[in-house]
Amino acid sequence: MVSKSDDFSEWYNEVIDKAGLRDKRYPVKGMDVWTPYGWSAMTLIDNLMRREMARTGHGEVNFPLLIPETEFRKEAEHIRGFEDEVYWVTHAGKNPLDIRLCLRPTSETAMYPVFALWIRSHADLPLKVFQIVSTFRYDTKQTRTFLRVREIHFFESHTAHVDADDAERQIHEDLEIMERLGRELCVPYLLMRRPEWDKFPGAFYSLAADAYAPTGRTLQLATMHHYRDNFAKAYDITYEAPDGSRQFAHQTTYGMSERLLGALVAVHGDDKGIVIPPAVAPIQIVVVPIPEKGRQDVILDEARKLAAELGEHVRVKYDDRDLRPGAKFYEWEAKGVPLRAELGPRDLADGVVTLARRDADGRSTVPRSGVVDAVRSLLNEIQKDLYARAERELRTHIFDIAAPEEAREAINRFGWCGSESCGLQVEADTGMSLLGTPFLKEPYSGSCIVCGKPTDTPAYLARTY
Amino acid sequence: MVSKSDDFSEWYNEVIDKAGLRDKRYPVKGMDVWTPYGWSAMTLIDNLMRREMARTGHGEVNFPLLIPETEFRKEAEHIRGFEDEVYWVTHAGKNPLDIRLCLRPTSETAMYPVFALWIRSHADLPLKVFQIVSTFRYDTKQTRTFLRVREIHFFESHTAHVDADDAERQIHEDLEIMERLGRELCVPYLLMRRPEWDKFPGAFYSLAADAYAPTGRTLQLATMHHYRDNFAKAYDITYEAPDGSRQFAHQTTYGMSERLLGALVAVHGDDKGIVIPPAVAPIQIVVVPIPEKGRQDVILDEARKLAAELGEHVRVKYDDRDLRPGAKFYEWEAKGVPLRAELGPRDLADGVVTLARRDADGRSTVPRSGVVDAVRSLLNEIQKDLYARAERELRTHIFDIAAPEEAREAINRFGWCGSESCGLQVEADTGMSLLGTPFLKEPYSGSCIVCGKPTDTPAYLARTY
Repeated sequence: MVSKSDDFSEWYNEVIDKAGLRDKRYPVKGMDVWTPYGWSAMTLIDNLMRREMARTGHGEVNFPLLIPETEFRKEAEHIRGFEDEVYWVTHAGKNPLDIRLCLRPTSETAMYPVFALWIRSHADLPLKVFQIVSTFRYDTKQTRTFLRVREIHFFESHTAHVDADDAERQIHEDLEIMERLGRELCVPYLLMRRPEWDKFPGAFYSLAADAYAPTGRTLQLATMHHYRDNFAKAYDITYEAPDGSRQFAHQTTYGMSERLLGALVAVHGDDKGIVIPPAVAPIQIVVVPIPEKGRQDVILDEARKLAAELGEHVRVKYDDRDLRPGAKFYEWEAKGVPLRAELGPRDLADGVVTLARRDADGRSTVPRSGVVDAVRSLLNEIQKDLYARAERELRTHIFDIAAPEEAREAINRFGWCGSESCGLQVEADTGMSLLGTPFLKEPYSGSCIVCGKPTDTPAYLARTY
Repeated sequence: MVSKSDDFSEWYNEVIDKAGLRDKRYPVKGMDVWTPYGWSAMTLIDNLMRREMARTGHGEVNFPLLIPETEFRKEAEHIRGFEDEVYWVTHAGKNPLDIRLCLRPTSETAMYPVFALWIRSHADLPLKVFQIVSTFRYDTKQTRTFLRVREIHFFESHTAHVDADDAERQIHEDLEIMERLGRELCVPYLLMRRPEWDKFPGAFYSLAADAYAPTGRTLQLATMHHYRDNFAKAYDITYEAPDGSRQFAHQTTYGMSERLLGALVAVHGDDKGIVIPPAVAPIQIVVVPIPEKGRQDVILDEARKLAAELGEHVRVKYDDRDLRPGAKFYEWEAKGVPLRAELGPRDLADGVVTLARRDADGRSTVPRSGVVDAVRSLLNEIQKDLYARAERELRTHIFDIAAPEEAREAINRFGWCGSESCGLQVEADTGMSLLGTPFLKEPYSGSCIVCGKPTDTPAYLARTY
């Protein structure tokens, strides 16, 4: 296998294949098959979000996939942003449709005509819903599993509020949810308020969580958008205020996709394969018996018991296939299982179990009697260590630059006056993207690297996936 | 509200609205919005199936929605069965696609080209996978929520086996799963081997589970198909047998949809609304405080404690809205919550909780200290009673008839020689559908009601949804 540091792109494709997360041989470009292993990891991530949504009072809905062209065209900016990449259903059976239907590229235009029916009074607000569905975008750039695909496994929450302030509070709740999710995935990120020219079509402002890949590029993990009443005006979403007046609702969305899994591969994987953080690992520990001639039955039996005992507490796989242990190790390492338990004649004699961490070299032994606690505490440790390592990677790859020519293949921070012309100038000079300005204020004092005007706000710049 | 017995069709639409299971105001015909309440019920059903699938060793996959026309056209019979009702994507952005893509009406033609890659040796078999996705069919008949829709929430398992016998064993495993599901939904059914002219396009035989609606019609809940090697030949799904020869795999599928929820509404609902069996009820019990002037706080406090205690064991809703208790009762009855707990000053004084079953009149009181056990046992009882009542309804509406003219608006059983001409004759004479013959043999001795030939196999006939 090619090394991650030599050729990231090739390595990325190979580790996904070797791990069996997706099958890319489906005969439509940008649409991969979810294998049971990959789908299981994705579902664990989805279920983390379902838990967060339940905790914060969002209801799970499911809106139709197909959006009539007439609804789709109601918000002008939104359309301009998407019309080049929507798929159109034009026929049913052999007959042309009267009104063309597009496959949702995102669900604003599907949901908001219905929100207009659901929302009547201030008592109906805030309205907080989410769905986990496929969205479709005909992206013309080169496709890449998880990161740039045409059928997208998508999480989207949509909320409606009495005013802009309440919507702003929602964005902060989203940030808290994102923070918890980032900890579970062991993927830290920067929170960037995107520049005007890169915000979501129809948004008042857009906020993104950008992770850092070891190639020096950033990877957009999630976005949150404050719409103010832009969509409410287009879809006539109004409510009766306590004073009897009719007001437009203010809205937000929070979107994420299978990119989360791509980030996890890119950030944690190594030359042996992917590494899945325990919180979202379909298999948290694999139990591999190391049989010895003559004692095969005893060892298989004890290993099975070990797996059953662990199975009451963690997600376990018992691998008793008729293969050499080395071949099994290789396979489970490629699949990123965070912990491996081995049980051989020596372990049995000593009353211990041998444990090997996926994220570190070497093995350790723990007493058989305390194995459940040991495994749980090791899984927690792995979770923390993976996060800490990724956090270090991100923090040590942010560089302050004083001129566009200094930009490195990493994340570059510099003074920006905030004007579109200076921002676009930096993008043009570097061939990189302006990620935006920190959403949560950070202390800064400098001057714009283009026009020299003093500024207390830095901007961030990187190549992006 | 119109009565179920007066106008079932109208009643059916109304109770779904009143329960808030779906919102039908989405601007595309046959595509309704899943509300949080309806989606929660559907997810509980989906998760029952996920549990059954895990128990029987099926992996959950997720295949792309879009199928290239070239793959779709490979199995000739299958295409003839679906080509009039598939939706076609012909454009992306402003450009026509080179190869048209259809929205999956079912996933054989999406999955089987990939199965051909996954299956190499007999050691890869049986292959057992399933997915829960939306499928799309442009049904030209009148649409009806859950029962006849154009975006269908769909469960489909697909398996591949070394030979027809092993595939047959799979069908029997599916039947066991169906039996367990039917018990959870409290929906009994007949198992019918569909006549040749009504089998799934491309199947060797088709088997269906037909439930009974109080209008005298049956409602297809699920189908299982034995494909033999029909699809394997079209998609070149072969494996290397132990003797080194290449053999075609034999396949089966098992499909179900949101109709399960429609059946639940039709079978159990009454003039107060729907009735959801405890096993799949999003809310199993609602706790309603009955405040009294002056003691409001004490009662609200005790009711909240009661809900919290119950919430550790069952799915509970605590309803402390500022509404009259009667209005709350009315609403939760419409939503089909199987059990209601009331707590008023009298209950508090007596140290009891008042419980009311949705499926029966009257109330009972249970000691506050034993409320958790009482609720659990009542939920079990409701579950059993709902099943028993539905089973009775089904069994008492099967009538033996000796001539087509005797056919009733119910399920009719009669002797059939098995010939297509006699079967079609009965359908023509009655305007009903021949459901098929019992999949599990039942003792019978009679003669064909058309040609008079002696037969030991009955056929079943009914109008269908």
